[in-house]
Amino acid sequence: MALPMKSFSRVCGLLKFLSSSRLPRQVICCNNSTVSSAKDDSPRTIFSGIQPTGIPHIGNYLGALQQWGQLQEEGHRVIYSIVDMHSITVPQDPAQLRENIFDMTACLLACGIDPDKSILFQQSSVSQHAELAWVLGCKATMARLKHLPQWKAKSGSKEEGGVGLFTYPILQAADILLYKASHVPIGVDQVQHLQLAQDLATTFNYHYGQYFPLPKAILGETKKVQSLRKPNSKMSKSEADPKSRIDLTDPPDVVREKMKKAITDFNSSVTYDPDTRPGVSNLVRIHSACTGLSYDEICRQNEGIETAKYKFVVADAVIAKMDPIRTEILRLQKDRGFLEGVLREGARKARDIAEKTYSDVKKLVGFS
Amino acid sequence: MALPMKSFSRVCGLLKFLSSSRLPRQVICCNNSTVSSAKDDSPRTIFSGIQPTGIPHIGNYLGALQQWGQLQEEGHRVIYSIVDMHSITVPQDPAQLRENIFDMTACLLACGIDPDKSILFQQSSVSQHAELAWVLGCKATMARLKHLPQWKAKSGSKEEGGVGLFTYPILQAADILLYKASHVPIGVDQVQHLQLAQDLATTFNYHYGQYFPLPKAILGETKKVQSLRKPNSKMSKSEADPKSRIDLTDPPDVVREKMKKAITDFNSSVTYDPDTRPGVSNLVRIHSACTGLSYDEICRQNEGIETAKYKFVVADAVIAKMDPIRTEILRLQKDRGFLEGVLREGARKARDIAEKTYSDVKKLVGFS
Repeated sequence: MALPMKSFSRVCGLLKFLSSSRLPRQVICCNNSTVSSAKDDSPRTIFSGIQPTGIPHIGNYLGALQQWGQLQEEGHRVIYSIVDMHSITVPQDPAQLRENIFDMTACLLACGIDPDKSILFQQSSVSQHAELAWVLGCKATMARLKHLPQWKAKSGSKEEGGVGLFTYPILQAADILLYKASHVPIGVDQVQHLQLAQDLATTFNYHYGQYFPLPKAILGETKKVQSLRKPNSKMSKSEADPKSRIDLTDPPDVVREKMKKAITDFNSSVTYDPDTRPGVSNLVRIHSACTGLSYDEICRQNEGIETAKYKFVVADAVIAKMDPIRTEILRLQKDRGFLEGVLREGARKARDIAEKTYSDVKKLVGFS
Repeated sequence: MALPMKSFSRVCGLLKFLSSSRLPRQVICCNNSTVSSAKDDSPRTIFSGIQPTGIPHIGNYLGALQQWGQLQEEGHRVIYSIVDMHSITVPQDPAQLRENIFDMTACLLACGIDPDKSILFQQSSVSQHAELAWVLGCKATMARLKHLPQWKAKSGSKEEGGVGLFTYPILQAADILLYKASHVPIGVDQVQHLQLAQDLATTFNYHYGQYFPLPKAILGETKKVQSLRKPNSKMSKSEADPKSRIDLTDPPDVVREKMKKAITDFNSSVTYDPDTRPGVSNLVRIHSACTGLSYDEICRQNEGIETAKYKFVVADAVIAKMDPIRTEILRLQKDRGFLEGVLREGARKARDIAEKTYSDVKKLVGFS
């Protein structure tokens, strides 16, 4: 299938590699975590999803969730999903998964997601995600999925992984297209999955007539938060050592203890140089993200302080920023009835949109 | 995962190869298209599906649909689905697919499916098929699907096929397990797909506790109807030459014309010898299936008749058997409102079962 090549809307430097691809790509790279664009101020539908992996860490908050809260203040239709169907692509303890769904709901609300401004819902409550994924899967090729970097990394050379791990980018595409999302806030590691969603929308439109808008990425210039123990890796839930990350429910003494154990180097001054000093630079980035101070300002203010002491300065900044969120999470976790109500109402609103879209899809495909 | 090896319930000769497989297999091979079994007379839930590929041919009728009608007379819960979601694993014209769904409904009713005795419904009307397929897909391995013979045949060595063509055996498993079917009437070519359904049920039960019964095959001793033009191949919708098959809506003159053109050989006597005389043996089989006469009786009765004349004897037998069905199809095709009502009511009944099963699955998996 030959398709015309469209120019990008706006492409930032790090995404130049996309220009080599065959199908139209629309990527917006935004500063200050906003979606404002000189060229395009039409109404937007913004969709994003997060897996219920337990309590998020500050990397999740500073890298995505903080931005989610901001996006809902800009007058767009904003839809956030707790994507539990994606969780089961790897083994899950059912009781733990159930708890994680409520924990994630509490965390998202505490991070500022307002159910009156955003639709917040649990993916598995809306049947059309799986249904649209089936339809889109019939238009996706095996070769296309096999070339996605996450699959290559996960499956290794043996290809012994589960089918869900292979096909989940199709479910992601369905998640986005079901709401006819125009914009999707994502990290750089998800760019190729968003491209798949664009490709599947294009292919669907080619076969059945113009229906899905091509979703664009919102690549916010958020702070890259690294592991406190391995500062060359991203802060991650999957790192075994809990000291590698600060969870949103860590109380102040735990934050201070983890910061104290953060890996730096043999140079005791506070400078920002991510290439040669990844550990201390990570602390400066976290500090900057929590206070809004620039790296230069931080380095100047902390001139003469040893890194051992600087760790407590950063800990205090993290606590000042995050402790109100922690308190709110703990309050919400106790109110299961309220959380259930939020998810129920969110599912109702999401279903209203999803039913309309999938009803159209069924007619276009010939099911009805 | 090590699982105990169970013995087969009853296994017919041609299925001995199954005993080499790792997981429990339960296959019943039945005579005379019934499911009666000396060992097991507990209530059964029987599920089968058929793609809306247009008007079925006599191979479909004599090989499967006739048996479907008989099964509903035996007091079991019987569920038949027009599996439109499977159709789109290959390209479909939407308007044609829509017509094909109604044509197939008319044909199934004309072939004896009684909506008061069986649940007859359109797959895409019941969202839980796709939802359960997602859950099961997360428990299936890539390696398992890649070794299914249909995938090997379809994808060739290039693996350029669509993802739907690769994953549809998982959707088939969901189709069956959603209704907790105990028995599935299938052709021998579908045995390995039923084994996948058994394996996925076993894996699900292993992880989440005993929930799904292991579906058993009903391999009826139905007549294998071959192409009239290539008697070494199965009669098939996908063969380009329409003279290769007799469709259920072919009027008597067309049946006679197609029979007249049926490939036989240079021996003009009527004998049954499928290995050396596949063409005339195929006619004898069709004749036997339409009349209930044995091959011996047929050969005796038609001793001395030349095959050119015998073709008209077979044509008359086909017309006598099939013409009431043809007339009924034509009548039902004109009553779209009735067909819609049958599918609507069938979907309601199917949904009642599917909602219960998937609600249980959601609790077991941890979604709710």
